[in-house]
Amino acid sequence: MTNGAKTRRRRSRQTILAAAETVFLKKGFIGASMDEVAEQAGMSKQTVYAHFNSKEALFREVVIAMTGGAAEALREDSDELLGDRLVGDFLMEVATDQLAVVLTPRLMQLRRMVIGEVERFPDLGVALYENGPGKSIARLAQAFAHYTCMGQLQTPDPQQAASFFNWILMGTPTNAAMLLGDAALPGREERYRHARESVRIFLCAYGTQHIAEGGAKE
Amino acid sequence: MTNGAKTRRRRSRQTILAAAETVFLKKGFIGASMDEVAEQAGMSKQTVYAHFNSKEALFREVVIAMTGGAAEALREDSDELLGDRLVGDFLMEVATDQLAVVLTPRLMQLRRMVIGEVERFPDLGVALYENGPGKSIARLAQAFAHYTCMGQLQTPDPQQAASFFNWILMGTPTNAAMLLGDAALPGREERYRHARESVRIFLCAYGTQHIAEGGAKE
Repeated sequence: MTNGAKTRRRRSRQTILAAAETVFLKKGFIGASMDEVAEQAGMSKQTVYAHFNSKEALFREVVIAMTGGAAEALREDSDELLGDRLVGDFLMEVATDQLAVVLTPRLMQLRRMVIGEVERFPDLGVALYENGPGKSIARLAQAFAHYTCMGQLQTPDPQQAASFFNWILMGTPTNAAMLLGDAALPGREERYRHARESVRIFLCAYGTQHIAEGGAKE
Repeated sequence: MTNGAKTRRRRSRQTILAAAETVFLKKGFIGASMDEVAEQAGMSKQTVYAHFNSKEALFREVVIAMTGGAAEALREDSDELLGDRLVGDFLMEVATDQLAVVLTPRLMQLRRMVIGEVERFPDLGVALYENGPGKSIARLAQAFAHYTCMGQLQTPDPQQAASFFNWILMGTPTNAAMLLGDAALPGREERYRHARESVRIFLCAYGTQHIAEGGAKE
């Protein structure tokens, strides 16, 4: 294949994935058809099948692309943030970023759809878990080990502490969005207040004495 | 209607609900049919329709019955527990009960199914929310107000503190069960360790000085 042909093929693939995302989020997995995806992409059904040989395969790629995109955005932020910041400042920035990136109607719809299909497509649940909360928790665990070395945290098991921080932060708003729909998603100010209380709780439980007393900075 | 007829009608209704629960959990909402429910119940389809006039109406009643049952079991336990126990003991019992009652394959499957159908049946999401986490949180909020009066907790907003406690406890295992399936459900010992760390975190953040230092009792 020439380079030009490769580029065209990659672009077609991106166009189909974007069209499929729209169709799946609107119709759900069962309701969606390859015909609709082709129409939305402005391509023939044959072209769609040349890239993805079944609706199942296409759904899988959409899930991986959507969760991977969010994970990438958060990872870049987090690497920049660590540096030599105080743990309270680091946690506040991670928390507000994560609430803003994850609590979107698009990702909440994806999460609902994957959960609804977990018994039929267990590997999609695993993909969303690993690319979503799994990546956030692994990144936090690394940061917590660092801050434990620095004497700012006490986390005998950084992975466990990271899982607790993740759900102190994400539990209330994610559960509300799952069951009450997108209208329950918090606005900017509510996200900020929720992040502050989450960080306070975490530092009370895992901060060393002088950190816990100072709390998260304004 | 005579009393005998009323009793028979109530029994038929219970039989249909139990059969429908089995069929919905096995096939999902879309996959299930009223024919299968009738067969599972050992009744004619006409009898099933005499009690529930559509598959939607039947699904709704199954969700309400299943979540209501769990809520009832937890409420009775909680009322018994409050009394004049120390807050750490109260929280440990509530936490281990809640993990044991909620983290069952049956309720996790129901939760997955309702989440997957929330856009089509928003009122089912609301029913599960109100009967499930909503009731647990309301009960905890009442207890936290009591323990704040007793000087054992400091919760300026008992409802908010209750929501945090609920998701410190339920976030990690519920999310794992949603995305990784029932194999991810924790066993008895793991539930106990998880409850202990959840109670420790909560008391560090919301306990008064002497309670936080003592932690949860063995």
